[in-house]
Amino acid sequence: MKLEHTKVLLPLAAGCGRLPPEQLPIQRMIFLLGGSGYVGQAYQQLLRAKGVPYRSLQRSTLDYTDPQVLLAALRRDRPDFLINAAGYTGKPNVDACEYDKTNCLFGNAVLPGRIAQACEEAGVPWGHVSSGCIFTGSRPDGSGFTEEDTPNFTFRQNNCSFYSGTKALGEEVLAGSGNVYLWRLRIPFNNIDSPRNYLSKLMNYDKLLDAANSISELDEFVAATFACWENHVPFGTYNVTNPGAVTTREVVDLIQQSGVCSKSFRFFTDETDFMNTAASTPRSNCIMDSGKLLAAGITMSPVHQAIENALARWQSSPTRTLAP
Amino acid sequence: MKLEHTKVLLPLAAGCGRLPPEQLPIQRMIFLLGGSGYVGQAYQQLLRAKGVPYRSLQRSTLDYTDPQVLLAALRRDRPDFLINAAGYTGKPNVDACEYDKTNCLFGNAVLPGRIAQACEEAGVPWGHVSSGCIFTGSRPDGSGFTEEDTPNFTFRQNNCSFYSGTKALGEEVLAGSGNVYLWRLRIPFNNIDSPRNYLSKLMNYDKLLDAANSISELDEFVAATFACWENHVPFGTYNVTNPGAVTTREVVDLIQQSGVCSKSFRFFTDETDFMNTAASTPRSNCIMDSGKLLAAGITMSPVHQAIENALARWQSSPTRTLAP
Repeated sequence: MKLEHTKVLLPLAAGCGRLPPEQLPIQRMIFLLGGSGYVGQAYQQLLRAKGVPYRSLQRSTLDYTDPQVLLAALRRDRPDFLINAAGYTGKPNVDACEYDKTNCLFGNAVLPGRIAQACEEAGVPWGHVSSGCIFTGSRPDGSGFTEEDTPNFTFRQNNCSFYSGTKALGEEVLAGSGNVYLWRLRIPFNNIDSPRNYLSKLMNYDKLLDAANSISELDEFVAATFACWENHVPFGTYNVTNPGAVTTREVVDLIQQSGVCSKSFRFFTDETDFMNTAASTPRSNCIMDSGKLLAAGITMSPVHQAIENALARWQSSPTRTLAP
Repeated sequence: MKLEHTKVLLPLAAGCGRLPPEQLPIQRMIFLLGGSGYVGQAYQQLLRAKGVPYRSLQRSTLDYTDPQVLLAALRRDRPDFLINAAGYTGKPNVDACEYDKTNCLFGNAVLPGRIAQACEEAGVPWGHVSSGCIFTGSRPDGSGFTEEDTPNFTFRQNNCSFYSGTKALGEEVLAGSGNVYLWRLRIPFNNIDSPRNYLSKLMNYDKLLDAANSISELDEFVAATFACWENHVPFGTYNVTNPGAVTTREVVDLIQQSGVCSKSFRFFTDETDFMNTAASTPRSNCIMDSGKLLAAGITMSPVHQAIENALARWQSSPTRTLAP
């Protein structure tokens, strides 16, 4: 099993201790699953910054993949909310899922169902980090897919990677569950160089595939999703991407304009060239409509601006060298 | 979790103790998973009858769904072979899987992958009870599907029950695994009245859907599959159905001719009528070709004869009443 987990943190964040106990607001406490992963770490940073007490469950000490174990923990600690940032994405990329189907299927489709079962029994509302990578392309008129559209990059279309198939099955397993948010993330990035950061990936791949995508600035993603719960937004599915879409060539232009990396980027001729030479499984490239989130009062910055901001505050990893 | 399990039995069957130790043949020992299920019980009966020592693993005492736990047991007990008869079929019928997708997906697709992982690491060959219900219809010329045909009643065709989807995913997860048999069972029956016996089901349903199917006499199924291992048949996928196909009306005629049940059977007008009034998810009705098994030297009786034999030796359940 390669699901992410991390150390158990103190249940109360330091910032909450400034007021005398009688003046403290009612303490909220959050359970976080997958806290050591790329997305989970961003949640930890957010919760610490907001002073929200949370417990990042570690599978080695509390096997939350066992619904009875999770249920007992929920009943004991009585968290107000649970965030599932655990999942199986494949490393270094989605191709790896093709070679570890058992764990991919378990982490992305069975685990969400087990969490739903435990949360339902314990009466704990929760949020699940789903993926927009269960879509490909755009609506016929070129606009983004809404939450009303049926995923079209799934096992049921027989056109997808095993990863996307399992993420779509995860949504299918959760269909009908109450008190749960399904937050669709897509191709996360931010200003911190990382093997999981889309901008870092583009700077480090030998050749790129040009495609239009809606993508998610990671820190905005975790803030927006947490705001769903804080603001009592109705439960359900939300596309949590920065408004708009961006092509790979546009991102590359922004990277070059920023001065972060000035190498000459090379592109595959087309998707066939990419599939023949660089990939074992098809990628989702798609445009999402994030209007439902906006209508719920939660804003994210337009995608080009989010990329510019990340590049303007870019922090290179000291251990990695970007090609000149 | 509703996977089948049963009591641990003595590892050595009584019949093996008749010879003095120095004359005993080399002891074989089998691990059986799902031994308390409808198929698993038939394996237990077979193994007892053959005097083959086996251990029927019980999840309550040894959680074989955890690959590390199973691996440790395999390394400790060193069985020669493992039979996986555990799976999630839905009770009273396949419709139930639509309402428990998490456990269905886990039992039918993740668990086989975990068993494969443990068996591979321990170097233990094994057999998996798969299902022919990942096909629908027949080949264009009306003949049965062979092991070379791609399953056509799966998530990837988007035409199937959740049960069939998960069984097909289970085969997909096992693709490329070495030292494993995939034995495709279809609509099991034998001479013992049971809620899981196809003949009992037909006698107890209010109305029937007429369709042509290849089906598996349960005791012949377990004998044929075990013979695969005993006879060193090459690993791989085998359709383990009684040769030929039979329509529901033909089975009903055989039931009436046998005198086991003389009620007037009623039929749905067609599949649409059936789906509209009696079922929540589509059924697999299909014809299989069992020639590969026969070519490997393992025979099963022709399907009509197998049904006649079962009815001729029919044992009614004392707790159940068949309509006159």
